[in-house]
Amino acid sequence: MGIIMKKYKSFSIKFSLKDGHSPDRIPTRRMLSDMKGMYLDNEALESILEKGDLCIYEFYELGIPEKSSELAFGTTIINPGKVGDEYFMTKGHFHEKLETAEIYYCTNGHGYLLMEDLNGNVELQEMTPGVSVYVPPNFAHRSINISDSEPFIMFFVFRADAGHDYKTIETKGYRKLVIEKNGKPEIIDNPKWK
Amino acid sequence: MGIIMKKYKSFSIKFSLKDGHSPDRIPTRRMLSDMKGMYLDNEALESILEKGDLCIYEFYELGIPEKSSELAFGTTIINPGKVGDEYFMTKGHFHEKLETAEIYYCTNGHGYLLMEDLNGNVELQEMTPGVSVYVPPNFAHRSINISDSEPFIMFFVFRADAGHDYKTIETKGYRKLVIEKNGKPEIIDNPKWK
Repeated sequence: MGIIMKKYKSFSIKFSLKDGHSPDRIPTRRMLSDMKGMYLDNEALESILEKGDLCIYEFYELGIPEKSSELAFGTTIINPGKVGDEYFMTKGHFHEKLETAEIYYCTNGHGYLLMEDLNGNVELQEMTPGVSVYVPPNFAHRSINISDSEPFIMFFVFRADAGHDYKTIETKGYRKLVIEKNGKPEIIDNPKWK
Repeated sequence: MGIIMKKYKSFSIKFSLKDGHSPDRIPTRRMLSDMKGMYLDNEALESILEKGDLCIYEFYELGIPEKSSELAFGTTIINPGKVGDEYFMTKGHFHEKLETAEIYYCTNGHGYLLMEDLNGNVELQEMTPGVSVYVPPNFAHRSINISDSEPFIMFFVFRADAGHDYKTIETKGYRKLVIEKNGKPEIIDNPKWK
């Protein structure tokens, strides 16, 4: 009985609505040096790195058991900034279990959720505080901070056994990129897409 | 191809972080008259009803397909108030698929999430803005607004095929109740529990 209780215990965890951070856990950090090859402008990336590495984004992983009956959740915090003309963004990934959905809820900042499936369908949703997005099954998803000053913060939930396939995006890239042109975000074809 | 796109399209929907409401949809409302028999003090309930019905809580249902790969989400908004000494609350329910978890994220107000399983294990989590709660598989869950002035607002996500079993709680009641005593919330045994 004690074991069952331990296994199924509820818990609470705070994620600040303002900065997205939890006082109780340490987030995973993706540094610019972890993102080599993911931005269009490699030279711009290298020239920033010469001055010092930067944190592009952070996210929380809570170690929920990877079972189909369980839900994993946490926050993603993307800092403002650009590599060349391209906004700071997450790597983006498919779920290993391709058919599983994901839910995002924005609590701060201004960004895009860029989605694409293996058939070339591309979808984009704009997020501001209070906007939730339904990411349909089979779509890779990447979050992009289009503000020049504020972090872009989202609370996320996915089926805990969904898994992360980063490899496909790392290898092929995204079909579309979001860059700044004349002070505004613009979606362009990715010339590096394989 | 057109059909596949329709089926899997992403969408965004706003739920105000302040009041929990969406400008795009109409929430389901639970009135006091829908809650007959769920509060300890039936006389107090009837005497409020004599003066007129009240909205106890509202929640959004988005019609996500009820499949294990999909996630249902929305907000619950519980108004402040009491029936006798008992705080305004949701009916509470088990999932029909008992083994499925649920995630809550509080954006406003002050409340409790009261959980119990069929073996009599009871768990309580306190929620304030920014607090998320993991509801483990097999636990009925009820939300309770313990503020005397503010709505208690939560964003929720569950597996879309989880289903709602309200019947068990409507018939048996909850083992525990949350009442106000000397201006503070107190958890007591439910004398009506069957």
